[in-house]
Amino acid sequence: MPIDPASPIIVTGFNWVPDFAVGHVRDLRARWALEEIGLPYAERLLSAMEPRPAGFYEEQPWGQVPVMTDGDLHIFESGAILIHLGEKDARLLPHGAQARMRVLSWLFAAFNSIEPIMLELGNIDIFARGEEWAKLRRPSLLTFAGQRLDRLVDALGSREYLADDFSIADIAMTTVLRNAGSTDLLTTRPILAAYVARNEARPAFQSALATQLETYAANMPKAK
Amino acid sequence: MPIDPASPIIVTGFNWVPDFAVGHVRDLRARWALEEIGLPYAERLLSAMEPRPAGFYEEQPWGQVPVMTDGDLHIFESGAILIHLGEKDARLLPHGAQARMRVLSWLFAAFNSIEPIMLELGNIDIFARGEEWAKLRRPSLLTFAGQRLDRLVDALGSREYLADDFSIADIAMTTVLRNAGSTDLLTTRPILAAYVARNEARPAFQSALATQLETYAANMPKAK
Repeated sequence: MPIDPASPIIVTGFNWVPDFAVGHVRDLRARWALEEIGLPYAERLLSAMEPRPAGFYEEQPWGQVPVMTDGDLHIFESGAILIHLGEKDARLLPHGAQARMRVLSWLFAAFNSIEPIMLELGNIDIFARGEEWAKLRRPSLLTFAGQRLDRLVDALGSREYLADDFSIADIAMTTVLRNAGSTDLLTTRPILAAYVARNEARPAFQSALATQLETYAANMPKAK
Repeated sequence: MPIDPASPIIVTGFNWVPDFAVGHVRDLRARWALEEIGLPYAERLLSAMEPRPAGFYEEQPWGQVPVMTDGDLHIFESGAILIHLGEKDARLLPHGAQARMRVLSWLFAAFNSIEPIMLELGNIDIFARGEEWAKLRRPSLLTFAGQRLDRLVDALGSREYLADDFSIADIAMTTVLRNAGSTDLLTTRPILAAYVARNEARPAFQSALATQLETYAANMPKAK
């Protein structure tokens, strides 16, 4: 469960990625949400190492994954995909006006107030590693990231989830925070480390990640 | 129009900001959307220069603006505020399933695929200006930004708006792209420069900006 090649829901991901990206490719968000609500989906797999197929930039302006189709409906950006899946099942996005807006506020907080910092950090620690500017910039970025995360700790407090119950906001925030794994940003903030661990322990996350990793294992490039 | 202190809709902004921030404070997005649909709103003004009032971090985890209330409903993050306003009026967010998802996809594209780059650029050109890492990093960031924007040019093509008609996605993308104004990223891409100019020429944008600027002018700190 729940890969079904005949499903009207099709998630586009990669067939294989290098080690540094494993567990961080964003179609994990769509897969996780689908597992939470038990909806089977088909995989459409692209090569991350080769040029995108003709026409794919018309589906996703930057040639990225995920893209999702649900019957005739086409959606890009994981935030929009999560809203669509949330609107199919109130376990991911409640109907009450304030409860729903609380989830949407936190969904954008994950993608617009926390993820930009993680993107800059990921660039420094992976793609620009070894460059002089990256070494010089890293300390001040970590300080800034820590300040943002301290506020997130305050906001989360003793609650289990960002909004009233588990929601698409937690799928977003957990997958964003997992990108801090190469730093001590989470380990020095036990409330956040526990938050991420709690969400990663969900059977739906475990199943989504396992499915993604099985796909990569099955398509690993052969040594030449 | 449309400031009305008795309105149930209350937008939180700043009473004054320094020159570098004028025209870029994010409550402009909420004001613009409200002007588009002719909804009056009340202003709640905070000092950007002083500590936030007690309890404000419970309304907005990072003490930022905008925050919006609509009667009993409380919303933070401009993306969530734009969705709420879009759901009040189909001129900002259409009802058709694909039309709506096209807008939401582009809304997240603005906030998650373009704005992170503009945030990094703003930091380099304003707050970290003069620091060695900022000088060393700037060229590669501009190259990356240019590549992202080239794809946005391709996606926009000859169309006037990101989705089928003007929408909250254009409010988001226009206010994000305006932050590239200190570079030649827009002037070297006439399609994007025209897109921004077209949206800035809308009476609702002009009115929203004028109202924000009048507020700042009325609260300018006196020389000591």
